[in-house]
Amino acid sequence: MHKHFAKRMLGVNPSAIDELLALGADPTIISFGGGYPDASLFPKKQLNQIFHDIINDPSGSTMQYAPSDGLPELRQEIANLMKEDGTTCEADDVLILQGSQQGIDFASRMLINPGDTLITEDPTFLGALLAFNPNQPNYAAIPMDDYGMRMDVLETVLKSNSNCKMIYTIPDFQNPTGVTMSLERRKKLMLLANSYDVIILEDTPYRHIRFEGKSLPTLKSLDTQNRVIHLGSFSKILVPGLRIGWAVAERSIIKKMGLLKVAADTQTSTLNMAATNIFLKRYDLGNHITKLRKAYLTKKELMLEQIKKHFPENVQITNPSGGLFTWVTFDKKFDTSEFMKKIALPEARVAYVPGGSFFPVKEQKNHARINFSSQPEDVICKGISALGQSLRNYEKRNTS
Amino acid sequence: MHKHFAKRMLGVNPSAIDELLALGADPTIISFGGGYPDASLFPKKQLNQIFHDIINDPSGSTMQYAPSDGLPELRQEIANLMKEDGTTCEADDVLILQGSQQGIDFASRMLINPGDTLITEDPTFLGALLAFNPNQPNYAAIPMDDYGMRMDVLETVLKSNSNCKMIYTIPDFQNPTGVTMSLERRKKLMLLANSYDVIILEDTPYRHIRFEGKSLPTLKSLDTQNRVIHLGSFSKILVPGLRIGWAVAERSIIKKMGLLKVAADTQTSTLNMAATNIFLKRYDLGNHITKLRKAYLTKKELMLEQIKKHFPENVQITNPSGGLFTWVTFDKKFDTSEFMKKIALPEARVAYVPGGSFFPVKEQKNHARINFSSQPEDVICKGISALGQSLRNYEKRNTS
Repeated sequence: MHKHFAKRMLGVNPSAIDELLALGADPTIISFGGGYPDASLFPKKQLNQIFHDIINDPSGSTMQYAPSDGLPELRQEIANLMKEDGTTCEADDVLILQGSQQGIDFASRMLINPGDTLITEDPTFLGALLAFNPNQPNYAAIPMDDYGMRMDVLETVLKSNSNCKMIYTIPDFQNPTGVTMSLERRKKLMLLANSYDVIILEDTPYRHIRFEGKSLPTLKSLDTQNRVIHLGSFSKILVPGLRIGWAVAERSIIKKMGLLKVAADTQTSTLNMAATNIFLKRYDLGNHITKLRKAYLTKKELMLEQIKKHFPENVQITNPSGGLFTWVTFDKKFDTSEFMKKIALPEARVAYVPGGSFFPVKEQKNHARINFSSQPEDVICKGISALGQSLRNYEKRNTS
Repeated sequence: MHKHFAKRMLGVNPSAIDELLALGADPTIISFGGGYPDASLFPKKQLNQIFHDIINDPSGSTMQYAPSDGLPELRQEIANLMKEDGTTCEADDVLILQGSQQGIDFASRMLINPGDTLITEDPTFLGALLAFNPNQPNYAAIPMDDYGMRMDVLETVLKSNSNCKMIYTIPDFQNPTGVTMSLERRKKLMLLANSYDVIILEDTPYRHIRFEGKSLPTLKSLDTQNRVIHLGSFSKILVPGLRIGWAVAERSIIKKMGLLKVAADTQTSTLNMAATNIFLKRYDLGNHITKLRKAYLTKKELMLEQIKKHFPENVQITNPSGGLFTWVTFDKKFDTSEFMKKIALPEARVAYVPGGSFFPVKEQKNHARINFSSQPEDVICKGISALGQSLRNYEKRNTS
């Protein structure tokens, strides 16, 4: 049937890590791969009560079809959340999405013609690349340092490309590197986007998982020209299985995205929108997030300590001040994908995400993304110790 | 921001009925518009128990991320359902979707290049047209009679168009007409699709809401060349707010659609997939469907009786043997959209769906789609009586 496929499907192919992740799905493997929150921290008691109330609603409306833009009450609750976080908006500026992933898909379908330049951080979120690919962009990947995307390089790219349509960025605890964009860079990014008339897609799934210091302003809050599409998600701060995310943007953009929403899947689950709405009204999300922050900080510290203890000395790791990941950099010749396939999985029985697939243009093979939020503390110790042992055995074999 | 929009967004515009449907959302209006099932028939007791069990699952896995193709157990349950319905398939041939609408979106993105010919019934489901439009097809709309799509016209179109990619059809209780494709036509359709090497997208949301007789074979069950993408949905037979649909197709197609799924929204809600899986395992869906059939048959009969009683004599209505709608045809000069805006909504306080938007190529203004499943019986009587009164007043005014 492949002869029937449309041209855009040329960009839709299994990624190199699919095979590895499939291997990692073996339950006897310890996985530090996915961006999973800790399931033991899900607010079960509250959700149990909420779903009971939803299903027994006498009108049945919480199980019926709902407006495709989302339940109006939930849009209002999210507008309130955004305001508390320093970004002014109203319910009509909010579109409910099937996770923020859907916002990445919609933004790229809405803006990218084949051949348009799409700017990302280098490396960036693999799921975003999968959503961008069918629209056949030319990627420009901007290197990062400890303060985020390098603005000098970005400016050069914007100067030399007349068809830059969109800049995709994860400013807070970036995936996969864990780096947070500084305030100065955020301001510079907005200036550049304004000068070169480019749309910014701001993805913030980890924003509220902050271990220290105060939140920096969202790009949306610094946006004086309505050019930021802000994406948020409850996946990391409530429950990923609900699949509730949102977009905040200028109303004409929200309307166009709303039309794509009707066409894409009619609407997000009414039950899950109602559950999220009731959670926000009835309970204190801030309190719940405080619990998550403490738990994930403890896990991060344990993970970094274990990596330092067990991995070879020349391995570098980031120490993110939030989020779910540390980014590990090995010797330039080391191939994390090959190592995982040939040694980590069969020998150490441990999975991570090899870093190569996160690079939109030129793959770097010597990185790995390691998640510290999902596994219990004893499993973190066991897994990292086993992985460290394999790494050191490998090193010995290759230097002897 | 509109100058930034990609070319494909030219096909993404508010439809003429959006404004009317927005007016119809007023709770003081009696709506026969949406394809809503009857909320009083939702299996609340069962779902209450199921969600209790899901949320209290000690592993937390039913609220965590899940495989993007869907929970393996649910894929197996759906394969079993399909087999009981006469269509042989395995769990790996099933992809879980965010409602069958998502399958329409994926199939058209997967197959349609701008300018390709896409064949539909005339009229057809508006939501499908909304999903097709961004891929910029040339529509060929095939007229229907009481036996479904006219195969003589289809053959002529296939002969004269070398770039026909896909035929979209709703063979059972078609939306909006309520017509069911005869067995002979189904066989002829498969022969033609095979001869002209075209993919068929078979959409079956109403298939199980049958009032009389036996189900006809699905197109998928008649498919000897793996060219049918079959879409199914739990929206009408369980609960629409769960947003659980599925595709069954050749494995290479399911794999490509699975890649689009990851990119589109990562996955369907884990809770809702788990709930559907448990419902199918623990309860008898067939029994539940039998209840729905009885209730909707009673409502259909009431609706037809009320229309015959209150509407002007020259109005024609279909008497569908299943589904949720009757299709009403007025005098050729009558404009159902104008009438709804100027008289039905403000005067009768009743909404329906004007038929114009269901025609992909040449709009016919003198039809309306009326839903009989959603409203209680007294409201059906009240609404149709008021609408009939307005229609007869209008007739008097225009003939006097």
